[in-house]
Amino acid sequence: MVGATIGSKLIELGHDVKMGSRTADNPKALDWVAKEGTKASAGTFAEASAYGELIFNCTSGIGSLEALKLAGEKNLSGKILIDLSNPLDFSKGMPPSLTVCNTDSLGEQIQRAFPATKVVKTLNTMNCKLMVNPSLLPCEHDVFLSGNDAQAKEQVKQALGWFGWKTIIDLGDITTARGAEQLLPMWIRLMGTLGTANFNFKIVK
Amino acid sequence: MVGATIGSKLIELGHDVKMGSRTADNPKALDWVAKEGTKASAGTFAEASAYGELIFNCTSGIGSLEALKLAGEKNLSGKILIDLSNPLDFSKGMPPSLTVCNTDSLGEQIQRAFPATKVVKTLNTMNCKLMVNPSLLPCEHDVFLSGNDAQAKEQVKQALGWFGWKTIIDLGDITTARGAEQLLPMWIRLMGTLGTANFNFKIVK
Repeated sequence: MVGATIGSKLIELGHDVKMGSRTADNPKALDWVAKEGTKASAGTFAEASAYGELIFNCTSGIGSLEALKLAGEKNLSGKILIDLSNPLDFSKGMPPSLTVCNTDSLGEQIQRAFPATKVVKTLNTMNCKLMVNPSLLPCEHDVFLSGNDAQAKEQVKQALGWFGWKTIIDLGDITTARGAEQLLPMWIRLMGTLGTANFNFKIVK
Repeated sequence: MVGATIGSKLIELGHDVKMGSRTADNPKALDWVAKEGTKASAGTFAEASAYGELIFNCTSGIGSLEALKLAGEKNLSGKILIDLSNPLDFSKGMPPSLTVCNTDSLGEQIQRAFPATKVVKTLNTMNCKLMVNPSLLPCEHDVFLSGNDAQAKEQVKQALGWFGWKTIIDLGDITTARGAEQLLPMWIRLMGTLGTANFNFKIVK
C-alpha cells in the first residue's frame, strides 16, 4: 500500500516508476501497473533497484533487509535509498513491538548492510496518504530526516518538496533514525485513542 | 530541577509541598524551602510520601524505583503517583539509551512494584519549564497521560489544568507509557537539532 501510494504520486509528478516485488508477476504490482499506465512497470526487487535512480524502500520493516538483499548490493550501490520502513513485529498481536530499537535502528542496520548506498530515513512516522499529501491536515506538521550523506539528504528534501512538504526537520546522521522509529509505539497508541490514522506529529517551538 | 519547578508551581497555586530527598538535610531541598517560605518543607522520601495527598515522582528515571522503595509502599498505598520520570541512562555518554523500552516501560515497572498505588505517567515528554507553563510556546501543544485508574487520571487532568494545560491526550492504560517514554530519544535529538529545550510535540489531526 505504501509503495503503490508513493509510486502513484511519483507518476503524477511525471516520473517513471518500477515497482519491485519478490517475483516479477506479483498480482498487486501488476494491478498497479494496469491502473497507472505507460509510466509504470513492475519487476523483481533486483530489476526495480537496477532501474531506479532513486529507490524507495516501502517494504514492511520485518522483511526489509531480506528484500534489499534480493534487490542486490550492486544495484543499490552509489544510489540514494529512501527508507520508509518501520521494524514492527505484529506476530505477537497488538500492540506490535519493535524488532530493533534504543541502541540501534533498522535505518542503521540497512546502512551497515549496504555501506555504498546512501540511506536516508524519512516519512516513516505517518500514514502513507499524508506522506504524499501533507495538506490533508488543516495545519502544518513535520517530517523528519536522518542520514549520513548531506548531499543525499538535500536531494531527498527536494523529493519531499515535490510531495508538498514545507517543514522538514533534519535530525542528523543515520543514528537519529532510532528516535524516528521509536515514535511508532506512540503513533500506534494515538491511532487507537484518536480513532484515525489521519494525524501527524508537529514540533511546536 | 524538575521537582523544584513542580513544587514552586504548586505553592504558587496555593498548595503545601514537601520536597523529598534521600536525606532530610539535602542542601538543594533546604535552599528551595528557604526560597519558597512557609508553604514549603523538606524531608526524606518517606516523610514526603506520607505527607502528600498527591505524589509527584520527579526523580531521575535510573533511580526512581530505588527512591520509591525508600518512599515506602505503605506511604504510597492508595495514593496517586504522578510519574514524570524517564528511564534514561547517560552513563555511556550522549545520546543516552533507555534502560527499559519496547515491551515494558518504567511506568509499568513502578505500577508493578506498587500495585496499591495509582500510577499516572504524564509530563515526561517536555522540559520542566513547559510542564508548569505551557503558554511559553506560541501555539497549543500536547501532554500525554497513561494509567490504569480512570478516576486517578481525571484528578491528574485537573492538576494539569491548574498548570495551564488545555489539550491532554489520554493514551490509555499504563502500558501506553512505552510510547511516551520512547519519545525521549527523538526529544533529545530534536534538542540538538533545534538548539533549544523550549519545544514540544503537538498532534495535528
